[in-house]
Amino acid sequence: MTALLTTANWDSDAWMHQLRTAAPDRRFVLEGVDAYDPAEIRYALTWKPPQGLLSSLPNLEVIFNLGAGVDAVLSDPDLPDLPLVRLVDENLASRMTEWVTLQVLAHHRGTLTYLAQQKAHRWHEEPQPLASEVRVGFLGYGVLAQHAARVIGALGFATHAWSRTGKDADIKLHVGADALPEFLANTDILVVLLPLTDATRKIINADLMAGLAQDGALGGPVVINAGRGGLQDEDDIVAALNTNVLKGASLDVFQTEPLPADSPLWTAPNLIITPHNSAVSDPRAVSRYVARQMQAFEAGEPLQNVVDRSRGY
Amino acid sequence: MTALLTTANWDSDAWMHQLRTAAPDRRFVLEGVDAYDPAEIRYALTWKPPQGLLSSLPNLEVIFNLGAGVDAVLSDPDLPDLPLVRLVDENLASRMTEWVTLQVLAHHRGTLTYLAQQKAHRWHEEPQPLASEVRVGFLGYGVLAQHAARVIGALGFATHAWSRTGKDADIKLHVGADALPEFLANTDILVVLLPLTDATRKIINADLMAGLAQDGALGGPVVINAGRGGLQDEDDIVAALNTNVLKGASLDVFQTEPLPADSPLWTAPNLIITPHNSAVSDPRAVSRYVARQMQAFEAGEPLQNVVDRSRGY
Repeated sequence: MTALLTTANWDSDAWMHQLRTAAPDRRFVLEGVDAYDPAEIRYALTWKPPQGLLSSLPNLEVIFNLGAGVDAVLSDPDLPDLPLVRLVDENLASRMTEWVTLQVLAHHRGTLTYLAQQKAHRWHEEPQPLASEVRVGFLGYGVLAQHAARVIGALGFATHAWSRTGKDADIKLHVGADALPEFLANTDILVVLLPLTDATRKIINADLMAGLAQDGALGGPVVINAGRGGLQDEDDIVAALNTNVLKGASLDVFQTEPLPADSPLWTAPNLIITPHNSAVSDPRAVSRYVARQMQAFEAGEPLQNVVDRSRGY
Repeated sequence: MTALLTTANWDSDAWMHQLRTAAPDRRFVLEGVDAYDPAEIRYALTWKPPQGLLSSLPNLEVIFNLGAGVDAVLSDPDLPDLPLVRLVDENLASRMTEWVTLQVLAHHRGTLTYLAQQKAHRWHEEPQPLASEVRVGFLGYGVLAQHAARVIGALGFATHAWSRTGKDADIKLHVGADALPEFLANTDILVVLLPLTDATRKIINADLMAGLAQDGALGGPVVINAGRGGLQDEDDIVAALNTNVLKGASLDVFQTEPLPADSPLWTAPNLIITPHNSAVSDPRAVSRYVARQMQAFEAGEPLQNVVDRSRGY
């Protein structure tokens, strides 16, 4: 029951070490490095696999995706019709919550403004609304958004969310396309944690941004995207920042990564850029998760967190 | 039962409006603006009052301090021996928690590093320890620190605290001077929320900073001070930042405010400066608090949150 590891440009040594520690009796091989017989591979552990690789493995049984989003693996036209397991990692949720909380507070408390004043040796206090006067809206309310919303709520912000489908929620939930305009009109800081599907591609565009609250306590809306770069129209975001349709933004993901050096995003005003590191998979935690699932699968138990391909997540 | 308002350089109109809204049947006068008879003043509502003013009011009964720290009013050598009421404002605690959380996350997630890379159009990911690998220590564990520690703990950081005296605490508490070295040696991010007293003056000095954990996950210790400027030796902080004894720092308070334009702090590396706005009193909430206490006092009930002058807070 050999498992094949294929990662884009991660630290493969660290991953192989953690996988072998988590499942010492199992054989792991690294794509592009170790020799293996395609027929021996039962499990694929992948992040952005080369197209066609998975379909070349005749005895493959389960595909484990090693990141939070499955859009890269689902875009393989030759993807075998096998169970695709989504990564659910408590550390991943914690890291995303750190990043989202940092970005919400940075815009709420004027970090870019105060850093600019510091550079000018200037002592000047800006008006400061209470957190309870600022409405943070989560566009997409899956595991990561729910985790982040608990801390954002504990800080006193007014929280609500939008979801494509109804679900149990601990905050006010707007459901379905018809509810989107009202959700946006009552949102001062929009946190986007959607999966990338045909329905969500470039959802962060001029129309959406113009629909955000213009009368809020911050003096203008803020967009925070840690979902996928494909969710955003980057030309529209640059234009919105330059024309004060947006008061600010934080982006961790981009249409092309690494972000090209000549992208106008680098110099757009009131924008905070991070290099797709909002929530990085921890090799140790993920290796344990995968090892547990392989063992349970071989004992005849059902796999957990299998992707519904008709939904795309 | 007239109340006299004396504030340093706040927006007095907003304060008078909120006080009159909270207690419409009561007379309020503004020092330096309204005419009044010193004998009519029963209450003083003060922030950094001119020395000698309070002792010139023969019928004064209660002094309300309008900020969190009472060191300024206690430094008046002619301060009358009357009840001095400390401000306890839930909004103040929330605002301080926002600021402390923002600063902890900014250092944990490398905000200054990534903003510098953004300026250089550089895409590069730094190692990122888990929050659970980072030990946040609260030096002083009063109402504000306890409030902040709950959110810092919810983010997954390892939290502990030091206090001069023992008290009930929801996290590990190191008590008394003898316990300070061990507390510091196990702290990666030090959050200082002490009152300013003779015992705490310049407590943030070279000795203290050298005693912080040097082997932590962040690669060096961080100091965050939102207490009082008098708690810190600013020459020592600049030196510690320049020699990597400190990995970073955030300061909201300074020995001289506004911070002079020629202070070396403005250009010290890995330092975040804010203009003493971490937690600003909200006139509406404070006015209601003062109005409630005046009414209760006149009904013969005990005052709440009276300062113990022997402790200095």
